Amino acid sequence: MVVQKVASHMPTDIPDIVIGRLPIYLRALTQLLNAGRTVTSSRELGEYLGISSAQIRKDLSHFGGFGKQGTGYDVAVLRDKLQQILHVDRQWPMAIVGAGDLGRALAHYRGFESRGFRVAAVFDNDERKVGQSLADTELVIEPMRRFKEVVQANGIEIAMLAVPAEHAQSVTDQLVDACIRAILNYAPINIIVPSNVYVQYIDPVIELQHMTFYLGHQPK
Amino acid sequence: MVVQKVASHMPTDIPDIVIGRLPIYLRALTQLLNAGRTVTSSRELGEYLGISSAQIRKDLSHFGGFGKQGTGYDVAVLRDKLQQILHVDRQWPMAIVGAGDLGRALAHYRGFESRGFRVAAVFDNDERKVGQSLADTELVIEPMRRFKEVVQANGIEIAMLAVPAEHAQSVTDQLVDACIRAILNYAPINIIVPSNVYVQYIDPVIELQHMTFYLGHQPK
Repeated sequence: MVVQKVASHMPTDIPDIVIGRLPIYLRALTQLLNAGRTVTSSRELGEYLGISSAQIRKDLSHFGGFGKQGTGYDVAVLRDKLQQILHVDRQWPMAIVGAGDLGRALAHYRGFESRGFRVAAVFDNDERKVGQSLADTELVIEPMRRFKEVVQANGIEIAMLAVPAEHAQSVTDQLVDACIRAILNYAPINIIVPSNVYVQYIDPVIELQHMTFYLGHQPK
Repeated sequence: MVVQKVASHMPTDIPDIVIGRLPIYLRALTQLLNAGRTVTSSRELGEYLGISSAQIRKDLSHFGGFGKQGTGYDVAVLRDKLQQILHVDRQWPMAIVGAGDLGRALAHYRGFESRGFRVAAVFDNDERKVGQSLADTELVIEPMRRFKEVVQANGIEIAMLAVPAEHAQSVTDQLVDACIRAILNYAPINIIVPSNVYVQYIDPVIELQHMTFYLGHQPK
């Protein structure tokens, strides 16, 4: 996982670590639904996810009872409820900032729309990229000087930051100035934001180093 | 974050959640070093990362004492020690499986080599892609039928899985058959592996949904 700046303005009493597991439950329930399943149990979900069934029941109990004792969970009902809790029973427009390899890969990623998000705009500072269309999308790369205007016109509150580390903080300041409220930061650097802005990090090296701790300890 | 299958074969008594924070400390220390800093404190690190200083001291105490009371941590010493603990005082060769937009972006990512990793091979099943060179790299896309041979010839134990969700499990089975020991899974689906194989997940939607929980609760 990765550290985030939410503790200071948590709108609920539910531990953030619990909130972080809800999307994982939602993903698993969607997989089960797609496989035609209608009922599941905390035990089955737990085995599937490598989480104890007691933990799953406790996590879900924060939001009221879902399963009936002995009959398990209705997969579709629990999926719908989690979508509401996470506010992804709608589609959030997002901005991608940085149209390099990663930004383009994100713009082409087909996994957002079914899960509550869509890429509404892509920005870059490089005038050679500005104005280019992204194949198979409706997107045209916009210059950063138009960021605030485009974001406000499209009701965008979420940005994916895919710029080089050395520019990540200065670009973040622009995002904050444009009233972006949540940033998914792909730059491998800690960014500083006001306490009312949420940040999550995606850094493959962090996840790889987590595994090499164990690889180095374990006999082959 | 995201759930992983390590609990059943942990080679140490140190909680996995602690291990997961060590790469975050390492990244922060490297940033400090690059900024010319020589000494830091758990309080400074904590403020920077949004983690309590007590937590940082407790996490590091699992590995012996680092800071002297009152004088803080020597940044370079602590960085070197964390690199050893995480076994990234070397360079791990990795395979990328899937040469779509994401796989190519990973192949071009310049952030691996300074942090303990390098991309040694890229694979795809699509015969139209096989044999293509990846610009600005030495890499040529290999066919999956050569996976086991190439992986073993290059001592590769780590794979980044960047294939569509519907192929993720069958490709995982091939990775496991070739004795891959750690998989960074970019497919938005849970994969099943034997208990001696480590898996971490990178799924941007999981991180986005974590933030929309709060966005939806918070007044604009």
